Amino acid sequence: QMLMEQVIHLQNDVTDLKNQISVLNAKDLSIAFFTYLKNDLVNVTKGTTLSFSGIRTNIGNAYDPVHGIFVAPASGSYNFAFSGSAQPASQDHGLHIFLKKNGVSEMYVFFDHNSHEWIQHGGSVVLHLNKGDRVWLEVGDRWGSNILGGSRAADNAYHSHFSGFLVQAD
Amino acid sequence: QMLMEQVIHLQNDVTDLKNQISVLNAKDLSIAFFTYLKNDLVNVTKGTTLSFSGIRTNIGNAYDPVHGIFVAPASGSYNFAFSGSAQPASQDHGLHIFLKKNGVSEMYVFFDHNSHEWIQHGGSVVLHLNKGDRVWLEVGDRWGSNILGGSRAADNAYHSHFSGFLVQAD
Amino acid sequence: QMLMEQVIHLQNDVTDLKNQISVLNAKDLSIAFFTYLKNDLVNVTKGTTLSFSGIRTNIGNAYDPVHGIFVAPASGSYNFAFSGSAQPASQDHGLHIFLKKNGVSEMYVFFDHNSHEWIQHGGSVVLHLNKGDRVWLEVGDRWGSNILGGSRAADNAYHSHFSGFLVQAD
Repeated sequence: QMLMEQVIHLQNDVTDLKNQISVLNAKDLSIAFFTYLKNDLVNVTKGTTLSFSGIRTNIGNAYDPVHGIFVAPASGSYNFAFSGSAQPASQDHGLHIFLKKNGVSEMYVFFDHNSHEWIQHGGSVVLHLNKGDRVWLEVGDRWGSNILGGSRAADNAYHSHFSGFLVQAD
Repeated sequence: QMLMEQVIHLQNDVTDLKNQISVLNAKDLSIAFFTYLKNDLVNVTKGTTLSFSGIRTNIGNAYDPVHGIFVAPASGSYNFAFSGSAQPASQDHGLHIFLKKNGVSEMYVFFDHNSHEWIQHGGSVVLHLNKGDRVWLEVGDRWGSNILGGSRAADNAYHSHFSGFLVQAD
Repeated sequence: QMLMEQVIHLQNDVTDLKNQISVLNAKDLSIAFFTYLKNDLVNVTKGTTLSFSGIRTNIGNAYDPVHGIFVAPASGSYNFAFSGSAQPASQDHGLHIFLKKNGVSEMYVFFDHNSHEWIQHGGSVVLHLNKGDRVWLEVGDRWGSNILGGSRAADNAYHSHFSGFLVQAD
């Protein structure tokens, strides 16, 4: 009788452990991408979504390189980083890039300068995303002539790249 | 008799599993923040702690937007990133920002330039923090006239932002 | 008889739980480093590996500060960030830094400018590494006179630093 009670107690414990471990397993996700701009973008139009079609890492396939959209496969906190290199092609020029989440600006990077030299800027954000939320980079205001640099094959130099990863699932 | 021994063996195993899973659960923490500077800071004094009162993410409520201090809720490794945009308002100017951990400098970002144009800089650090350790951004040397940019409501453009997350609990 | 079947069933469940938890424990790794350049590097030669001998964080001891090489202790996705400050010492100058994985370029940061003022740049990448893969920073093309800034003891200002962490083990 006592043995049967102990077995019932064990069964309850094991069920509880199974539940706890299935929660941990469900959160044990690998979502990580690192992509670069293949070709120079010259005088790109405001509102354009940047598509980074050069894939170096895309664990979980959450980044769509054709449309340039990251779609969250799971709810949680994410880190995103953008780095760009721009070449002003005129004296008075400007190029603004926004990171957007579902259409709302979350990060702003600008390439404004008074010379013709290449500029390199970037930044990172930490966002909470619900499953299905979308993140992308979009061109804001621009004026004058600009090039947003793609990859230089000669030295495998990625002038503009975009990366992100799941920090912690909910 | 043999059955009783097996039950005792199972009980020991289950106790051990419970301990292991409670360790994993305790480390399964979500700590992540992303904040931006709301208002322009003009000619801010050396030693000032920067308060980023615009909260976009604050999972775990470890960042205090009133005092501008992050207090580690758990021991572990953390990543912090700062990005700022400064506008020199005089020809000879400088603005240095330090990330400090319990008063010790861990990162240095400077906004020194010889023109009147906006500059954007930033950086990130990986720190081990003990529970209760404090991290903040602080103004170092500055000279001339400077603006550290806040948010521009028109395009939701955060000129200066601060983020961080728990990489891995101890 | 029925009790014995239940005990056998429990034993199978416990074995399965042990396996699952040992997988989770094996992935519960702390790998995180943050290092800075101690001394100024003046007119450093192309192909030089940068050694960041100032260790602030090196959990898991995966970064070798003598040779400047990070060796992955486990397969998984990693984030790496570099920030540098360079002082042009001549009007026509350039300094290119690459982050390399097993000899292949993954990130490109350049310090080219037409003035004599300090420049600060950086970037981050997300890479998948197999156990034993190597990551380092290397000098690319350079011309003219340049200083890549080390630490300024006076204010504990790290002009150039390198950090990384395991995002998620495979």
